[in-house]
Amino acid sequence: MELFNLGDITLQSGKVIQNAQLAYQTYGTLSESKDNVILYPTWYSGFISDNEWLIGPGMALDPSKYFIIIVCLLGNGQSSSPSNNDSWSHATVYDNVQQQHRLITEHFHIEKLKLVVGWSMGAGQTYQWGCLYPDMVERICPFAGSARTAPHNFVFLEGIRSALEVDLQGNNDDKRPEVGIRAFARVYAGWGFSQPFYKQELWRQLGFSSLENFLTDFWEAFFLKRDHRNLLTLIWTWQNADISNNPQFNKDLGAALKSIKAKTLLLCPERDLYFPPDDNKDEMAHLQNANMIIIPGVWGHFAGGGINKEDTDFIDAHLKKLLED
Amino acid sequence: MELFNLGDITLQSGKVIQNAQLAYQTYGTLSESKDNVILYPTWYSGFISDNEWLIGPGMALDPSKYFIIIVCLLGNGQSSSPSNNDSWSHATVYDNVQQQHRLITEHFHIEKLKLVVGWSMGAGQTYQWGCLYPDMVERICPFAGSARTAPHNFVFLEGIRSALEVDLQGNNDDKRPEVGIRAFARVYAGWGFSQPFYKQELWRQLGFSSLENFLTDFWEAFFLKRDHRNLLTLIWTWQNADISNNPQFNKDLGAALKSIKAKTLLLCPERDLYFPPDDNKDEMAHLQNANMIIIPGVWGHFAGGGINKEDTDFIDAHLKKLLED
Repeated sequence: MELFNLGDITLQSGKVIQNAQLAYQTYGTLSESKDNVILYPTWYSGFISDNEWLIGPGMALDPSKYFIIIVCLLGNGQSSSPSNNDSWSHATVYDNVQQQHRLITEHFHIEKLKLVVGWSMGAGQTYQWGCLYPDMVERICPFAGSARTAPHNFVFLEGIRSALEVDLQGNNDDKRPEVGIRAFARVYAGWGFSQPFYKQELWRQLGFSSLENFLTDFWEAFFLKRDHRNLLTLIWTWQNADISNNPQFNKDLGAALKSIKAKTLLLCPERDLYFPPDDNKDEMAHLQNANMIIIPGVWGHFAGGGINKEDTDFIDAHLKKLLED
Repeated sequence: MELFNLGDITLQSGKVIQNAQLAYQTYGTLSESKDNVILYPTWYSGFISDNEWLIGPGMALDPSKYFIIIVCLLGNGQSSSPSNNDSWSHATVYDNVQQQHRLITEHFHIEKLKLVVGWSMGAGQTYQWGCLYPDMVERICPFAGSARTAPHNFVFLEGIRSALEVDLQGNNDDKRPEVGIRAFARVYAGWGFSQPFYKQELWRQLGFSSLENFLTDFWEAFFLKRDHRNLLTLIWTWQNADISNNPQFNKDLGAALKSIKAKTLLLCPERDLYFPPDDNKDEMAHLQNANMIIIPGVWGHFAGGGINKEDTDFIDAHLKKLLED
């Protein structure tokens, strides 16, 4: 993991994070003409390592061909976050992409991105890149995400936020809200995968022996490794995600989507419960150069999580086609 | 509200609730031949008054024609419940229907039910009636429910249970977990209505001025009126709901469904997130005398909650047809 020093950054809110840093990691070699760059932002609470499943020899994101940069969300615990920076303040998707742009241009002196790709909140950053830097981004592939957080998605996030915050009553920050994080994880579990995923007990394919085992050792275990302050600030980022909520677009989502010049591929899990494909259909009405493809199956949002080979192969195959065009 | 004294009742678990009572209320007049009876059990945390929207002059459940009995779930706060009976122990759907049968036969001396009808957990009791007393029940209409709680539904309930229980750490029973109930309600909010319901802001039709207002004044306000012990025991009942988990059927759900002789009408909200119509389709493979009809629209589970006129009219019209046959 590398850290790019941003210095003091002023956020959309007007607040300043002092000595801010972006965490990132690169894979492969930047070509001399700097024309082989793929940017791949992280998702909600994901670390760099959680993104790596989509990178590999023979895959679309092949480090022998491309210079792939995984860049971390502000607040993910590796970039500047409540857990590592006392001057922390909530950051928007716009704030993130502004700072990522500095990493790309000031640090790497890259002028073109062959592809920006990301899952979930990573998809949100992907759309944002496409509309803020339309002449810089050649292709985008947001998968299982949206350009603006839908109201129902907002409500889902209210649920996990509230469950966690029950454990912060009368708290001091030293207390780790482990019970709250476990509840947060159990609420999340119902949203992450679809109804038939649970009916078919497909968690067995992930090596779990019972539903309870899956809830504790997959869901709770993952979030217990995270700092609750980071979990909460990223919910804020997610709930407030809107690629048009910035001076360029003044909340005109249609205009923001229309401004994207990149060849666009939306990959949408058929059974995603909080980024339902219907919402992506609404986006398609404004996108100028886009295809929308359903990822078939019952893995729900986690069709994009790199844990089901069939879905991963599907995403990889479509990324290959996109990169060939 | 009337109370039927059950005396000491032994549950499936072997435990005894002392001086148990079933709360109920009747509407209309029992005919001399006792052939005009409709039984209408309550749903998760619902009171008698919460069932009344489906009863009225000119409606299918017309008190001028039928003798309608609303009977309360054990644990709902009106029947024996943790909040009003110190000997309380978790009750199953089977336990409930066993005791309701005593109300019908011992108290009212009724031998035939023209219809059993219920929403959600009320639907669960409706199926149970059909298979435990196949020669007594002429028609059943479970709406937005299932004969056995599906695994995903179980996980949804884990979420609300966990959120509430965060507030019971190191507790004594005197402390009212208000923050936990509010979190519980916010988690529930995402499940109760569909994604497009929130996108279309249909809560405005219910008189709320903002999403936050809907979350606090509809969701939190409803559950804050309930006792948390009752909320938790009814989650247990729901999570363990299986009409075949009893000596008659030994967990053979197909056999339990096959044994239902009543004319059966399943009404299934198109967008129900925790009782999805796909699960009812699975039931249809075993039901002998059944129709399944989708309630179209975006109100999700609450299409069966009596708060949207269009859905209420739809349900009422189909109940009329069912009663005419």
